[in-house]
Amino acid sequence: MHRELSEEQARAWLATAVEEARTGLSEGGVPIGAALYGADGTLLGRGHNRRVQDGDPSAHGETSAFRAAGRQRTYRGTTMVTTLSPCWYCCGLVKQFGITRVVIGESTTFEGGQEWLAEQGVEIVRLDDAECVTMMEEFIAAHPDVWNEDIGEDED
Amino acid sequence: MHRELSEEQARAWLATAVEEARTGLSEGGVPIGAALYGADGTLLGRGHNRRVQDGDPSAHGETSAFRAAGRQRTYRGTTMVTTLSPCWYCCGLVKQFGITRVVIGESTTFEGGQEWLAEQGVEIVRLDDAECVTMMEEFIAAHPDVWNEDIGEDED
Repeated sequence: MHRELSEEQARAWLATAVEEARTGLSEGGVPIGAALYGADGTLLGRGHNRRVQDGDPSAHGETSAFRAAGRQRTYRGTTMVTTLSPCWYCCGLVKQFGITRVVIGESTTFEGGQEWLAEQGVEIVRLDDAECVTMMEEFIAAHPDVWNEDIGEDED
Repeated sequence: MHRELSEEQARAWLATAVEEARTGLSEGGVPIGAALYGADGTLLGRGHNRRVQDGDPSAHGETSAFRAAGRQRTYRGTTMVTTLSPCWYCCGLVKQFGITRVVIGESTTFEGGQEWLAEQGVEIVRLDDAECVTMMEEFIAAHPDVWNEDIGEDED
């Protein structure tokens, strides 16, 4: 079921994650969104970072989308689409559950563990999306404390 | 604030995680529990795997305890105590948020990413607890499908 992903398809899927990020931003939260697509291209789940909204530090964009997808027998052939390069927590999720591919909106503001994921055999698609960069840059400039908390940076 | 952990203290903390695992088992769920302790030894959060109970694949023992602890400015000096060696998803959580130490009830039934965590500088304390082993062995024998699903194993 694993197929080549066209850039057009990747960008169409990214739009879902961007919608989630925008929703998060409008709620006053960290603007990171994600969506999990099945091997056949169906949307399994979508979500966004909910640290601020729910006081839930475990709700990153990717884990929210994964959670929304509910129980799955296999993740073979699935694609996790995220507006921002996944952190180690979300990279661990991808590796443990055998998610096949990760589409990344941007990795300019945050690199995360994408190189490690690629070494683990996960297919990485980087889109360098301008809107994703702008959303994160503006949020980080306005709320550096929340952003640092979201990635466990505690340099005082 | 980082102090040596005595085996007595580690086993006392593990008892909290074991209580969580037993609760999960009594609910019909995967019997894995965890607790997050602060640098000063206070209990920050506790929880257990809730895949079956909530239909939530993101709720591993460690992520449930992390979630229950709510937002934290830093995880420096904290200890994640878990009945079972953490999977890659939960290892990623520990690395990303800078959790200092992981106390592991058992790693006989599942090895997870503990060696990688140790390489990342996380202090690993292995307790080889007999009750933790028995709970997992019995659960895996009775519900191999649920266990495989919980760690993303889909060998058919």
